[in-house]
Amino acid sequence: MTSRNIDYSILFNKDLPSPSGRWQGHPKYNFVGGHSDPNLVPMDRFIESAANVFKGDPRNIAMYNYEGGPQGILTLRSFLARKLAAERGIHVTTEEILITSGSGQGIELINEILLDAGDTVIVESFTFSGALSNLRRRGVNFVGVDVDQKGIRMDHLKDILEDLRTNGIRPKYIYTIPTLQNPTGTVMTMERRYQLINLSEEYEVPIFEDECYADLIFEGEYEKAIRALDDSNRVLHIGSFSKSLGPGIRLGYVVASWDVMSRLISRKNDAGTGVMDQMIVGDYFSNHYDDHIQDMRRALKRKCDVLSAALREHFGPLVDFEEPRGGMYLWAKLPSGIDSRDFVQTALNEGIAYNPGPDWSADPDAAANYIRLCFALPSEIEIWEGIAKLAKVFQLE
Amino acid sequence: MTSRNIDYSILFNKDLPSPSGRWQGHPKYNFVGGHSDPNLVPMDRFIESAANVFKGDPRNIAMYNYEGGPQGILTLRSFLARKLAAERGIHVTTEEILITSGSGQGIELINEILLDAGDTVIVESFTFSGALSNLRRRGVNFVGVDVDQKGIRMDHLKDILEDLRTNGIRPKYIYTIPTLQNPTGTVMTMERRYQLINLSEEYEVPIFEDECYADLIFEGEYEKAIRALDDSNRVLHIGSFSKSLGPGIRLGYVVASWDVMSRLISRKNDAGTGVMDQMIVGDYFSNHYDDHIQDMRRALKRKCDVLSAALREHFGPLVDFEEPRGGMYLWAKLPSGIDSRDFVQTALNEGIAYNPGPDWSADPDAAANYIRLCFALPSEIEIWEGIAKLAKVFQLE
Repeated sequence: MTSRNIDYSILFNKDLPSPSGRWQGHPKYNFVGGHSDPNLVPMDRFIESAANVFKGDPRNIAMYNYEGGPQGILTLRSFLARKLAAERGIHVTTEEILITSGSGQGIELINEILLDAGDTVIVESFTFSGALSNLRRRGVNFVGVDVDQKGIRMDHLKDILEDLRTNGIRPKYIYTIPTLQNPTGTVMTMERRYQLINLSEEYEVPIFEDECYADLIFEGEYEKAIRALDDSNRVLHIGSFSKSLGPGIRLGYVVASWDVMSRLISRKNDAGTGVMDQMIVGDYFSNHYDDHIQDMRRALKRKCDVLSAALREHFGPLVDFEEPRGGMYLWAKLPSGIDSRDFVQTALNEGIAYNPGPDWSADPDAAANYIRLCFALPSEIEIWEGIAKLAKVFQLE
Repeated sequence: MTSRNIDYSILFNKDLPSPSGRWQGHPKYNFVGGHSDPNLVPMDRFIESAANVFKGDPRNIAMYNYEGGPQGILTLRSFLARKLAAERGIHVTTEEILITSGSGQGIELINEILLDAGDTVIVESFTFSGALSNLRRRGVNFVGVDVDQKGIRMDHLKDILEDLRTNGIRPKYIYTIPTLQNPTGTVMTMERRYQLINLSEEYEVPIFEDECYADLIFEGEYEKAIRALDDSNRVLHIGSFSKSLGPGIRLGYVVASWDVMSRLISRKNDAGTGVMDQMIVGDYFSNHYDDHIQDMRRALKRKCDVLSAALREHFGPLVDFEEPRGGMYLWAKLPSGIDSRDFVQTALNEGIAYNPGPDWSADPDAAANYIRLCFALPSEIEIWEGIAKLAKVFQLE
């Protein structure tokens, strides 16, 4: 019988990642990824919204791209147009919005239309691991620009742009997460946002603005989106519903002018993003966005406070971090000499999962002593216990 | 202001498809694609199922890959394991099933792990346009094997395999839609299924079995899946929920042994397929699959009969076709000399959309005088009227 089996190992594409292991379930103290708070998923209201939308036109389900065509369900895009105007200062029509299967698909599509192997882009020195792995997979070069508490350091960016120009390289875009940066949790100042647009103009390099976390400021208001400060086509803007509702819902969006949008649509080969979640989320957020986001912000703030206190208590002076202004991550610096990658398995053996810094860094070794902690999923008790145990893993007490 | 705009045309990737036009809505007489019958979408029961599943564990939504991990929601995979056993003779565990965002993602992932540019695969001479365009995009060569009313012609397949072997080429797979073939609507005989497995063994070429339409036989029972006839790992099997429920729901699946499955999972970069539709469909089909499918089969049979009668009435002896045993397509042959591509725009001007044969053919010119008509979406009256108008477009009356 065995002899009849095919040996796929000699048939596989040469560039494959390692095979996946069998699913082992989630760890008890789960600080990885962008999981959300289960208590904040509006299950009862999803039942109401499902009842609303499934009383509607069945052609939304029976057809490919029924209402609104390949750019996604109109109710959801109309909500987004209103929300982007009210919350982020971005004024666009529904024709400039593309619903995607998670914001990761937004990154994928933008890269797909703009990037060839060998191209160069600029990224923040600490940035989203998924953006970096997408670039690596494509054989695209990236240059990391330093970030501080005010966002991208413009003097460094100017140096990089000048250097690249001297070498005859025009980068394809500057990728930034200006509002609640991933992983640092910082917010770029208005001054820097304007400076960034000026540099983008001077060097003719588009800005790729990722605002996945911009719903989740803890208190007050914050800076308008970079896309709101510019009425040319130079800012490509993406966002997500995964962070405000839960990442099991794979819904994101791209805001782009038609010259880019028409290319994104023609490159979106998935026969459309699934409509059920678009319909339900469109109905729910059209009716309950403000309440939902206020609850979310309060709850995340509380958990962030617990995590900060737990880190101070259990790691003491050996940890250094700035409390984020919002979002779901805390970016913590451990003493230099520690390599956070070395402790991943030991931590997992104790039921604790964290993200080692190097995955979130354009230069992995430069973030060896950093860890990223997502505080949205675990309960307050789990945060406290998990951090106490994690400190022991790092042999800090 | 305009001068500040970026000219993306010089930044775009060199291999892009043409830009999309702005969305124009759907035509009145719509025979294209794989749209479903809106009257058969169980909207009320989706409300019930949504109420059931949203009473469940919110972690399915709050987390990436909560229940069942990256392979998809367990309820849906368990339903599939039962259905595949009962309806298709395929006995697998949920670990051998991967839920995908439409069966198109199944094709994409299988191609992604198996195919490099310059590779060769074998396809049915008339086949799914999406499979062909995926191969073209990758620079993969494909060889078309003739199909007749009994499925792939095995003498032709043997010749092709022998020829390729002589030239030192081992094809990466044989792609077949054996059960209600797209576009021809034929069903491969059991004898041929066994012969295909024998050839696959002899030439060590995997079989890629696409059973997207296998739920939709009109009457009686039909041949077991090829995957059911083989207990080695040589058959990769995909299927879909789009055809039984509606393509707005982007849910499909891959059945594969772990050596392949582990590669598919590690290549699935979408952070999971959306869970809302998985949860709702899993609940609905676990309770109502049999009734649903019986209703669907009866309704499709009725529409197919109307389409057949309309073609005979309005096209007369100028059209030649076999009535399909199920599914949603009729593959019609017009007199040779007609090129169906030439009439697409004229038909659209009359509100009629059909698929020209060349898009569904490994050798486009060989299907110039064919058209594919999907009869699931239009009402019986629309089918009758649309075909009458279409006959005039083709100047046949």
